Amino acid sequence: MINNKNINSTKKIYRIFGINNCFNLLLYNQKFSILKIFVDNSSKVIKNHQIMDVIQSKDYSVNFINHDEFIRDNNYKHSQGIVVEFCGDLYNSLDLCDFFKKNMCFIIADQITDPQNFGQILRTCECAGIDGIIIPKHKSIQMTNTVLQVSQGAFMHVNVYRPTNIKSSIDYLKSKGFWIIGLENSIDSDEWYNMDYKGKVAIVIGSEGSGIRKLTKKSCDFLTTINMHGKINSLNVTAALSAIVFERQRQLDS
Amino acid sequence: MINNKNINSTKKIYRIFGINNCFNLLLYNQKFSILKIFVDNSSKVIKNHQIMDVIQSKDYSVNFINHDEFIRDNNYKHSQGIVVEFCGDLYNSLDLCDFFKKNMCFIIADQITDPQNFGQILRTCECAGIDGIIIPKHKSIQMTNTVLQVSQGAFMHVNVYRPTNIKSSIDYLKSKGFWIIGLENSIDSDEWYNMDYKGKVAIVIGSEGSGIRKLTKKSCDFLTTINMHGKINSLNVTAALSAIVFERQRQLDS
Repeated sequence: MINNKNINSTKKIYRIFGINNCFNLLLYNQKFSILKIFVDNSSKVIKNHQIMDVIQSKDYSVNFINHDEFIRDNNYKHSQGIVVEFCGDLYNSLDLCDFFKKNMCFIIADQITDPQNFGQILRTCECAGIDGIIIPKHKSIQMTNTVLQVSQGAFMHVNVYRPTNIKSSIDYLKSKGFWIIGLENSIDSDEWYNMDYKGKVAIVIGSEGSGIRKLTKKSCDFLTTINMHGKINSLNVTAALSAIVFERQRQLDS
Repeated sequence: MINNKNINSTKKIYRIFGINNCFNLLLYNQKFSILKIFVDNSSKVIKNHQIMDVIQSKDYSVNFINHDEFIRDNNYKHSQGIVVEFCGDLYNSLDLCDFFKKNMCFIIADQITDPQNFGQILRTCECAGIDGIIIPKHKSIQMTNTVLQVSQGAFMHVNVYRPTNIKSSIDYLKSKGFWIIGLENSIDSDEWYNMDYKGKVAIVIGSEGSGIRKLTKKSCDFLTTINMHGKINSLNVTAALSAIVFERQRQLDS
Protein backbone atom coordinates (compact mmCIF):
# COMPACT_ATOMS: atom_id res chain seq x y z
CA MET A 1 0.00 0.00 0.00
CA ILE A 2 2.97 2.35 0.55
CA ASN A 3 5.39 3.52 -2.13
CA ASN A 4 8.53 3.10 -0.14
CA LYS A 5 11.14 4.24 -2.64
CA ASN A 6 14.57 5.50 -1.67
CA ILE A 7 13.63 6.73 1.79
CA ASN A 8 16.59 8.42 3.33
CA SER A 9 16.34 8.89 7.05
CA THR A 10 17.99 12.34 6.86
CA LYS A 11 15.16 13.56 4.66
CA LYS A 12 12.04 14.97 6.20
CA ILE A 13 8.49 13.71 5.82
CA TYR A 14 5.90 16.22 4.61
CA ARG A 15 2.14 16.01 4.31
CA ILE A 16 0.03 18.09 1.94
CA PHE A 17 -3.63 18.02 0.97
CA GLY A 18 -6.09 19.46 -1.52
CA ILE A 19 -6.45 18.71 -5.22
CA ASN A 20 -4.27 21.50 -6.67
CA ASN A 21 -1.45 20.97 -4.25
CA CYS A 22 -1.38 17.16 -4.56
CA PHE A 23 -1.86 17.29 -8.33
CA ASN A 24 1.16 19.58 -8.73
CA LEU A 25 3.26 17.33 -6.52
CA LEU A 26 2.32 14.06 -8.20
CA LEU A 27 2.43 15.41 -11.77
CA TYR A 28 5.82 17.13 -11.56
CA ASN A 29 7.51 14.95 -8.97
CA GLN A 30 10.90 13.61 -9.95
CA LYS A 31 12.90 13.79 -6.76
CA PHE A 32 10.59 13.06 -3.82
CA SER A 33 9.54 9.68 -2.46
CA ILE A 34 5.76 9.47 -2.38
CA LEU A 35 5.04 7.59 0.85
CA LYS A 36 1.26 7.51 1.11
CA ILE A 37 -1.71 8.76 -0.85
CA PHE A 38 -5.01 8.82 1.04
CA VAL A 39 -8.23 9.36 -0.89
CA ASP A 40 -11.71 9.79 0.56
CA ASN A 41 -13.60 6.85 -0.96
CA SER A 42 -16.79 8.91 -1.25
CA SER A 43 -15.19 11.70 -3.30
CA LYS A 44 -16.40 11.52 -6.88
CA VAL A 45 -14.50 14.72 -7.67
CA ILE A 46 -11.18 13.04 -6.95
CA LYS A 47 -12.10 9.82 -8.75
CA ASN A 48 -13.04 11.75 -11.90
CA HIS A 49 -10.09 14.16 -11.69
CA GLN A 50 -7.04 13.77 -13.92
CA ILE A 51 -5.01 13.35 -10.73
CA MET A 52 -6.12 9.69 -10.86
CA ASP A 53 -4.58 9.33 -14.34
CA VAL A 54 -1.32 10.76 -13.03
CA ILE A 55 -1.37 8.37 -10.08
CA GLN A 56 -2.02 5.43 -12.40
CA SER A 57 0.59 6.42 -14.98
CA LYS A 58 3.23 6.82 -12.28
CA ASP A 59 2.24 3.60 -10.59
CA TYR A 60 1.62 5.14 -7.17
CA SER A 61 -0.48 3.19 -4.68
CA VAL A 62 -3.58 4.77 -3.18
CA ASN A 63 -5.25 4.08 0.17
CA PHE A 64 -8.97 4.52 -0.42
CA ILE A 65 -10.54 5.27 2.95
CA ASN A 66 -14.20 5.58 3.87
CA HIS A 67 -15.43 9.13 4.43
CA ASP A 68 -15.78 9.06 8.23
CA GLU A 69 -12.37 7.54 8.73
CA PHE A 70 -10.84 10.01 6.28
CA ILE A 71 -12.31 12.99 8.16
CA ARG A 72 -11.24 11.51 11.50
CA ASP A 73 -7.65 10.92 10.40
CA ASN A 74 -7.29 14.08 8.36
CA ASN A 75 -8.38 17.05 10.35
CA TYR A 76 -8.15 19.31 7.38
CA LYS A 77 -10.99 21.65 6.51
CA HIS A 78 -9.88 21.97 2.92
CA SER A 79 -8.46 18.53 2.25
CA GLN A 80 -10.87 18.05 -0.66
CA GLY A 81 -10.64 14.32 -0.17
CA ILE A 82 -6.95 13.80 -0.84
CA VAL A 83 -3.82 13.78 1.31
CA VAL A 84 -0.29 12.94 0.18
CA GLU A 85 2.65 12.14 2.41
CA PHE A 86 6.09 12.41 0.86
CA CYS A 87 9.70 12.45 1.82
CA GLY A 88 12.60 14.45 0.47
CA ASP A 89 14.93 17.39 0.71
CA LEU A 90 13.18 20.65 -0.15
CA TYR A 91 16.34 22.74 -0.14
CA ASN A 92 18.83 23.27 -2.94
CA SER A 93 22.47 24.26 -2.94
CA LEU A 94 23.39 27.68 -4.31
CA ASP A 95 26.78 26.24 -5.32
CA LEU A 96 25.07 23.94 -7.79
CA CYS A 97 23.10 26.77 -9.36
CA ASP A 98 24.13 27.97 -12.81
CA PHE A 99 23.94 31.60 -13.79
CA PHE A 100 23.85 31.45 -17.60
CA LYS A 101 20.53 33.21 -18.04
CA LYS A 102 20.71 36.88 -19.02
CA ASN A 103 17.87 37.95 -16.70
CA MET A 104 17.76 36.32 -13.29
CA CYS A 105 16.14 37.26 -10.01
CA PHE A 106 16.51 35.79 -6.53
CA ILE A 107 14.50 36.77 -3.48
CA ILE A 108 16.42 36.87 -0.21
CA ALA A 109 13.91 36.56 2.63
CA ASP A 110 15.75 37.82 5.70
CA GLN A 111 13.98 36.30 8.71
CA ILE A 112 10.40 35.99 7.50
CA THR A 113 8.57 34.05 10.22
CA ASP A 114 4.93 33.79 9.16
CA PRO A 115 4.13 30.55 7.25
CA GLN A 116 1.13 32.13 5.48
CA ASN A 117 3.32 34.96 4.19
CA PHE A 118 6.12 32.62 3.12
CA GLY A 119 3.70 30.26 1.35
CA GLN A 120 2.21 33.21 -0.54
CA ILE A 121 5.71 34.47 -1.39
CA LEU A 122 6.53 31.07 -2.95
CA ARG A 123 3.30 31.19 -4.94
CA THR A 124 3.84 34.75 -6.18
CA CYS A 125 7.49 34.07 -7.05
CA GLU A 126 6.54 30.98 -9.06
CA CYS A 127 4.04 32.98 -11.09
CA ALA A 128 6.49 35.84 -11.64
CA GLY A 129 9.33 33.69 -12.96
CA ILE A 130 11.65 34.20 -9.98
CA ASP A 131 14.71 31.91 -10.06
CA GLY A 132 14.96 31.09 -6.39
CA ILE A 133 14.36 32.13 -2.79
CA ILE A 134 17.12 32.26 -0.21
CA ILE A 135 16.26 31.95 3.49
CA PRO A 136 18.58 31.78 6.50
CA LYS A 137 18.89 28.54 8.47
CA HIS A 138 18.06 30.25 11.74
CA LYS A 139 15.43 32.71 12.99
CA SER A 140 13.41 32.18 9.84
CA ILE A 141 10.44 30.23 8.64
CA GLN A 142 11.46 26.91 7.09
CA MET A 143 9.65 24.72 4.55
CA THR A 144 6.87 23.44 6.84
CA ASN A 145 3.67 21.64 5.88
CA THR A 146 1.73 24.91 6.25
CA VAL A 147 4.12 26.71 3.89
CA LEU A 148 3.81 23.94 1.30
CA GLN A 149 0.04 24.01 1.68
CA VAL A 150 -0.31 27.77 1.21
CA SER A 151 2.06 27.66 -1.77
CA GLN A 152 -0.54 25.61 -3.70
CA GLY A 153 2.12 23.49 -5.39
CA ALA A 154 4.54 26.36 -6.08
CA PHE A 155 7.11 24.67 -3.84
CA MET A 156 7.59 22.14 -6.64
CA HIS A 157 8.86 24.78 -9.06
CA VAL A 158 10.70 27.44 -7.08
CA ASN A 159 14.13 26.53 -5.77
CA VAL A 160 14.61 27.36 -2.10
CA TYR A 161 18.15 27.80 -0.77
CA ARG A 162 19.07 27.73 2.88
CA PRO A 163 22.68 28.79 3.44
CA THR A 164 24.11 29.10 6.94
CA ASN A 165 25.05 32.68 6.26
CA ILE A 166 23.00 35.17 4.23
CA LYS A 167 25.92 37.61 3.99
CA SER A 168 28.11 34.99 2.26
CA SER A 169 25.30 34.20 -0.18
CA ILE A 170 24.95 37.89 -1.04
CA ASP A 171 28.71 38.11 -1.64
CA TYR A 172 28.54 34.96 -3.79
CA LEU A 173 25.69 36.41 -5.89
CA LYS A 174 27.62 39.68 -6.24
CA SER A 175 30.61 37.69 -7.53
CA LYS A 176 28.28 36.24 -10.17
CA GLY A 177 27.23 39.69 -11.36
CA PHE A 178 24.12 40.29 -9.27
CA TRP A 179 22.97 43.69 -8.01
CA ILE A 180 21.42 43.56 -4.56
CA ILE A 181 18.26 45.61 -3.96
CA GLY A 182 16.90 45.90 -0.42
CA LEU A 183 13.21 46.65 0.18
CA GLU A 184 13.37 49.11 3.06
CA ASN A 185 11.35 52.11 4.10
CA SER A 186 14.15 54.66 4.59
CA ILE A 187 15.07 58.15 3.42
CA ASP A 188 17.79 56.59 1.25
CA SER A 189 15.23 54.46 -0.59
CA ASP A 190 14.01 55.22 -4.08
CA GLU A 191 10.57 54.20 -5.39
CA TRP A 192 10.37 50.57 -6.52
CA TYR A 193 9.68 51.48 -10.16
CA ASN A 194 12.91 53.50 -10.37
CA MET A 195 14.99 50.34 -9.87
CA ASP A 196 16.43 48.57 -12.90
CA TYR A 197 15.47 44.91 -12.66
CA LYS A 198 16.96 43.83 -15.98
CA GLY A 199 19.98 41.56 -15.86
CA LYS A 200 20.84 39.81 -12.60
CA VAL A 201 19.25 41.11 -9.41
CA ALA A 202 18.51 39.84 -5.93
CA ILE A 203 15.76 41.49 -3.89
CA VAL A 204 16.09 41.44 -0.12
CA ILE A 205 12.92 41.54 1.99
CA GLY A 206 12.97 41.74 5.77
CA SER A 207 10.97 40.30 8.62
CA GLU A 208 7.31 41.29 9.07
CA GLY A 209 8.07 43.35 12.15
CA SER A 210 11.49 44.89 11.93
CA GLY A 211 12.58 44.81 8.29
CA ILE A 212 16.02 43.92 6.97
CA ARG A 213 18.82 43.41 9.51
CA LYS A 214 21.47 46.15 9.63
CA LEU A 215 24.30 43.93 8.40
CA THR A 216 22.23 42.61 5.50
CA LYS A 217 21.18 46.16 4.62
CA LYS A 218 24.82 47.21 4.43
CA SER A 219 25.35 44.60 1.70
CA CYS A 220 22.63 46.09 -0.51
CA ASP A 221 23.68 48.11 -3.56
CA PHE A 222 20.33 49.91 -3.65
CA LEU A 223 17.43 50.47 -1.29
CA THR A 224 13.90 50.69 -2.60
CA THR A 225 10.51 51.38 -1.07
CA ILE A 226 6.84 51.51 -1.96
CA ASN A 227 5.49 54.83 -0.80
CA MET A 228 2.23 54.50 1.08
CA HIS A 229 -0.85 56.47 0.10
CA GLY A 230 -2.99 55.79 3.13
CA LYS A 231 -2.86 56.18 6.90
CA ILE A 232 -1.93 52.76 8.26
CA ASN A 233 1.41 52.68 6.47
CA SER A 234 1.69 48.91 6.73
CA LEU A 235 1.70 46.98 3.48
CA ASN A 236 1.91 43.21 3.86
CA VAL A 237 5.35 41.97 2.77
CA THR A 238 3.84 39.58 0.20
CA ALA A 239 1.77 42.39 -1.35
CA ALA A 240 4.87 44.58 -1.53
CA LEU A 241 6.87 41.78 -3.12
CA SER A 242 4.12 41.18 -5.66
CA ALA A 243 4.24 44.84 -6.76
CA ILE A 244 8.01 44.55 -7.20
CA VAL A 245 8.33 41.21 -9.00
CA PHE A 246 5.63 42.16 -11.48
CA GLU A 247 7.24 45.57 -12.02
CA ARG A 248 10.32 43.52 -12.91
CA GLN A 249 8.25 41.53 -15.42
CA ARG A 250 6.91 44.77 -16.87
CA GLN A 251 10.46 46.02 -17.38
CA LEU A 252 11.61 42.72 -18.92
CA ASP A 253 8.65 42.76 -21.35
CA SER A 254 9.18 46.36 -22.45
CA MET B 1 -17.29 50.26 32.51
CA ILE B 2 -18.97 50.24 29.10
CA ASN B 3 -19.04 53.15 26.67
CA ASN B 4 -22.62 52.88 25.66
CA LYS B 5 -22.89 55.73 23.20
CA ASN B 6 -25.48 55.89 20.44
CA ILE B 7 -26.00 52.15 20.12
CA ASN B 8 -28.38 51.47 17.30
CA SER B 9 -29.91 48.01 17.34
CA THR B 10 -29.73 47.75 13.52
CA LYS B 11 -25.96 48.14 13.68
CA LYS B 12 -23.74 45.12 14.09
CA ILE B 13 -21.34 44.42 16.91
CA TYR B 14 -17.72 43.67 15.93
CA ARG B 15 -14.76 42.51 17.95
CA ILE B 16 -11.12 43.08 17.02
CA PHE B 17 -7.85 42.47 18.82
CA GLY B 18 -4.15 43.22 18.60
CA ILE B 19 -2.32 46.49 19.16
CA ASN B 20 -2.17 47.79 15.56
CA ASN B 21 -5.76 46.98 14.81
CA CYS B 22 -7.19 48.42 18.05
CA PHE B 23 -4.90 51.45 17.89
CA ASN B 24 -6.12 52.33 14.40
CA LEU B 25 -9.72 51.92 15.47
CA LEU B 26 -9.47 53.99 18.65
CA LEU B 27 -7.26 56.71 17.16
CA TYR B 28 -9.28 57.36 14.02
CA ASN B 29 -12.75 56.46 15.25
CA GLN B 30 -15.40 59.06 14.68
CA LYS B 31 -18.46 57.06 13.76
CA PHE B 32 -18.44 53.81 15.74
CA SER B 33 -19.63 53.23 19.28
CA ILE B 34 -16.84 51.70 21.34
CA LEU B 35 -18.64 49.18 23.56
CA LYS B 36 -15.86 47.47 25.52
CA ILE B 37 -12.10 47.61 25.77
CA PHE B 38 -10.48 44.64 27.48
CA VAL B 39 -6.82 44.84 28.46
CA ASP B 40 -4.69 42.07 29.91
CA ASN B 41 -3.65 43.52 33.27
CA SER B 42 -0.23 41.86 33.05
CA SER B 43 0.68 43.43 29.70
CA LYS B 44 3.32 46.10 30.18
CA VAL B 45 3.50 46.58 26.41
CA ILE B 46 -0.09 47.80 26.29
CA LYS B 47 0.23 49.95 29.40
CA ASN B 48 3.29 51.71 27.95
CA HIS B 49 1.87 52.01 24.43
CA GLN B 50 0.47 55.28 23.10
CA ILE B 51 -2.84 53.45 22.71
CA MET B 52 -3.39 54.22 26.41
CA ASP B 53 -2.99 57.96 25.71
CA VAL B 54 -5.58 57.70 22.96
CA ILE B 55 -7.96 55.85 25.28
CA GLN B 56 -7.48 58.49 27.96
CA SER B 57 -7.83 61.47 25.62
CA LYS B 58 -11.04 60.07 24.17
CA ASP B 59 -12.40 59.17 27.59
CA TYR B 60 -12.99 55.50 26.78
CA SER B 61 -13.38 53.09 29.71
CA VAL B 62 -11.10 50.07 29.98
CA ASN B 63 -11.75 46.73 31.63
CA PHE B 64 -8.43 45.60 33.06
CA ILE B 65 -8.58 41.84 33.41
CA ASN B 66 -6.09 39.48 35.02
CA HIS B 67 -4.01 37.43 32.60
CA ASP B 68 -5.64 34.02 33.13
CA GLU B 69 -9.13 35.42 32.79
CA PHE B 70 -8.12 37.41 29.70
CA ILE B 71 -6.73 34.30 28.00
CA ARG B 72 -9.81 32.28 29.00
CA ASP B 73 -12.27 34.85 27.65
CA ASN B 74 -10.28 35.79 24.57
CA ASN B 75 -9.24 32.74 22.68
CA TYR B 76 -7.02 34.74 20.40
CA LYS B 77 -3.48 33.65 19.71
CA HIS B 78 -2.39 37.10 18.62
CA SER B 79 -4.55 39.29 20.84
CA GLN B 80 -1.43 40.99 22.24
CA GLY B 81 -3.34 41.77 25.41
CA ILE B 82 -6.08 43.98 23.98
CA VAL B 83 -9.56 43.36 22.60
CA VAL B 84 -12.06 46.02 21.51
CA GLU B 85 -15.76 45.51 20.91
CA PHE B 86 -17.54 48.15 18.86
CA CYS B 87 -20.78 48.75 17.12
CA GLY B 88 -21.55 50.49 13.85
CA ASP B 89 -22.29 50.31 10.18
CA LEU B 90 -19.21 49.37 8.15
CA TYR B 91 -20.85 50.00 4.79
CA ASN B 92 -21.18 53.25 2.89
CA SER B 93 -23.59 54.39 0.23
CA LEU B 94 -22.25 54.94 -3.27
CA ASP B 95 -24.96 57.59 -3.79
CA LEU B 96 -23.32 59.74 -1.12
CA CYS B 97 -19.90 59.46 -2.71
CA ASP B 98 -18.53 62.50 -4.51
CA PHE B 99 -16.44 62.19 -7.63
CA PHE B 100 -14.57 65.50 -7.75
CA LYS B 101 -11.07 64.04 -7.68
CA LYS B 102 -9.27 63.84 -11.01
CA ASN B 103 -7.80 60.40 -10.36
CA MET B 104 -10.03 57.87 -8.65
CA CYS B 105 -10.04 54.11 -8.42
CA PHE B 106 -12.62 51.69 -7.08
CA ILE B 107 -12.18 47.95 -6.71
CA ILE B 108 -15.24 45.86 -7.51
CA ALA B 109 -14.83 42.49 -5.79
CA ASP B 110 -17.25 40.17 -7.56
CA GLN B 111 -17.99 37.31 -5.16
CA ILE B 112 -14.75 37.03 -3.21
CA THR B 113 -15.45 34.52 -0.43
CA ASP B 114 -12.21 34.08 1.51
CA PRO B 115 -11.94 36.39 4.57
CA GLN B 116 -8.13 36.26 4.55
CA ASN B 117 -8.06 37.40 0.93
CA PHE B 118 -10.61 40.13 1.50
CA GLY B 119 -8.81 41.41 4.60
CA GLN B 120 -5.56 41.57 2.64
CA ILE B 121 -7.33 43.32 -0.24
CA LEU B 122 -8.54 46.01 2.19
CA ARG B 123 -5.02 46.42 3.55
CA THR B 124 -3.41 46.64 0.09
CA CYS B 125 -6.07 49.06 -1.17
CA GLU B 126 -5.58 51.34 1.82
CA CYS B 127 -1.84 51.51 1.17
CA ALA B 128 -2.33 52.10 -2.56
CA GLY B 129 -4.73 55.02 -2.19
CA ILE B 130 -7.79 53.22 -3.55
CA ASP B 131 -11.02 55.20 -3.08
CA GLY B 132 -13.36 52.36 -2.23
CA ILE B 133 -14.26 48.69 -2.57
CA ILE B 134 -17.61 47.51 -3.86
CA ILE B 135 -18.90 44.07 -2.88
CA PRO B 136 -22.25 42.43 -3.67
CA LYS B 137 -24.77 41.82 -0.88
CA HIS B 138 -25.06 38.14 -1.70
CA LYS B 139 -22.66 35.27 -2.45
CA SER B 140 -19.76 37.36 -1.22
CA ILE B 141 -17.64 37.79 1.84
CA GLN B 142 -18.99 40.55 4.11
CA MET B 143 -17.21 42.67 6.72
CA THR B 144 -16.69 39.96 9.35
CA ASN B 145 -14.46 40.06 12.43
CA THR B 146 -11.85 37.99 10.58
CA VAL B 147 -11.81 40.43 7.66
CA LEU B 148 -11.39 43.39 10.04
CA GLN B 149 -8.63 41.53 11.87
CA VAL B 150 -6.63 40.67 8.74
CA SER B 151 -7.04 44.24 7.45
CA GLN B 152 -4.90 45.50 10.37
CA GLY B 153 -6.94 48.66 10.76
CA ALA B 154 -7.34 49.35 7.04
CA PHE B 155 -11.11 48.93 7.40
CA MET B 156 -11.11 52.31 9.15
CA HIS B 157 -9.83 54.12 6.07
CA VAL B 158 -11.18 52.35 3.00
CA ASN B 159 -14.85 52.86 2.19
CA VAL B 160 -16.69 49.63 1.50
CA TYR B 161 -19.90 49.76 -0.54
CA ARG B 162 -22.45 46.97 -0.66
CA PRO B 163 -25.10 47.62 -3.31
CA THR B 164 -27.81 45.07 -4.02
CA ASN B 165 -26.78 44.96 -7.65
CA ILE B 166 -23.21 45.14 -8.96
CA LYS B 167 -24.35 45.77 -12.53
CA SER B 168 -26.24 48.92 -11.47
CA SER B 169 -23.17 50.17 -9.58
CA ILE B 170 -21.02 49.67 -12.67
CA ASP B 171 -23.55 51.61 -14.75
CA TYR B 172 -23.61 54.34 -12.09
CA LEU B 173 -19.80 54.60 -12.10
CA LYS B 174 -19.82 54.70 -15.91
CA SER B 175 -22.27 57.60 -15.75
CA LYS B 176 -19.75 59.38 -13.54
CA GLY B 177 -16.99 58.97 -16.11
CA PHE B 178 -15.35 55.75 -14.94
CA TRP B 179 -13.74 53.18 -17.22
CA ILE B 180 -14.30 49.60 -16.09
CA ILE B 181 -11.34 47.20 -16.26
CA GLY B 182 -11.92 43.50 -15.60
CA LEU B 183 -9.07 41.29 -14.37
CA GLU B 184 -9.63 38.13 -16.37
CA ASN B 185 -7.37 35.52 -17.91
CA SER B 186 -8.76 35.46 -21.46
CA ILE B 187 -7.51 35.77 -25.03
CA ASP B 188 -9.16 39.19 -25.18
CA SER B 189 -7.14 40.43 -22.20
CA ASP B 190 -4.18 42.74 -22.50
CA GLU B 191 -1.26 42.80 -20.02
CA TRP B 192 -2.00 44.81 -16.86
CA TYR B 193 0.70 47.41 -17.59
CA ASN B 194 -0.90 48.26 -20.94
CA MET B 195 -4.00 49.59 -19.21
CA ASP B 196 -4.32 53.34 -18.60
CA TYR B 197 -5.16 53.84 -14.93
CA LYS B 198 -5.10 57.64 -14.98
CA GLY B 199 -8.40 59.42 -14.47
CA LYS B 200 -11.38 57.47 -13.14
CA VAL B 201 -11.21 53.68 -13.26
CA ALA B 202 -12.85 50.74 -11.54
CA ILE B 203 -11.07 47.38 -11.46
CA VAL B 204 -13.22 44.26 -11.30
CA ILE B 205 -11.77 41.15 -9.67
CA GLY B 206 -13.60 37.84 -9.60
CA SER B 207 -14.02 34.99 -7.15
CA GLU B 208 -11.02 32.85 -6.19
CA GLY B 209 -12.29 29.86 -8.13
CA SER B 210 -14.22 30.96 -11.16
CA GLY B 211 -13.30 34.58 -11.89
CA ILE B 212 -15.69 37.36 -12.90
CA ARG B 213 -19.30 36.42 -13.66
CA LYS B 214 -20.32 36.56 -17.33
CA LEU B 215 -22.78 39.43 -16.90
CA THR B 216 -20.27 41.50 -14.94
CA LYS B 217 -17.60 40.79 -17.56
CA LYS B 218 -19.90 42.09 -20.29
CA SER B 219 -20.01 45.44 -18.47
CA CYS B 220 -16.22 45.82 -18.58
CA ASP B 221 -14.72 48.28 -21.06
CA PHE B 222 -11.38 46.49 -20.99
CA LEU B 223 -10.08 43.11 -19.87
CA THR B 224 -6.61 42.77 -18.43
CA THR B 225 -4.48 39.88 -17.24
CA ILE B 226 -1.15 39.15 -15.61
CA ASN B 227 0.65 36.61 -17.74
CA MET B 228 2.12 33.78 -15.70
CA HIS B 229 5.79 32.82 -15.96
CA GLY B 230 5.65 29.54 -14.09
CA LYS B 231 3.87 26.20 -14.24
CA ILE B 232 1.10 26.41 -11.64
CA ASN B 233 -0.63 29.35 -13.34
CA SER B 234 -2.47 30.34 -10.18
CA LEU B 235 -1.65 33.74 -8.74
CA ASN B 236 -3.51 34.63 -5.56
CA VAL B 237 -6.12 37.32 -6.26
CA THR B 238 -4.64 39.65 -3.63
CA ALA B 239 -1.15 39.34 -5.16
CA ALA B 240 -2.59 40.08 -8.61
CA LEU B 241 -4.47 43.09 -7.27
CA SER B 242 -1.33 44.37 -5.58
CA ALA B 243 0.58 44.28 -8.89
CA ILE B 244 -2.22 46.25 -10.54
CA VAL B 245 -2.92 48.94 -7.92
CA PHE B 246 0.77 49.73 -7.60
CA GLU B 247 1.16 49.83 -11.38
CA ARG B 248 -1.60 52.43 -11.19
CA GLN B 249 0.44 54.38 -8.63
CA ARG B 250 3.50 54.14 -10.90
CA GLN B 251 1.49 55.60 -13.77
CA LEU B 252 0.04 58.39 -11.59
CA ASP B 253 3.53 59.29 -10.34
CA SER B 254 5.10 59.38 -13.80
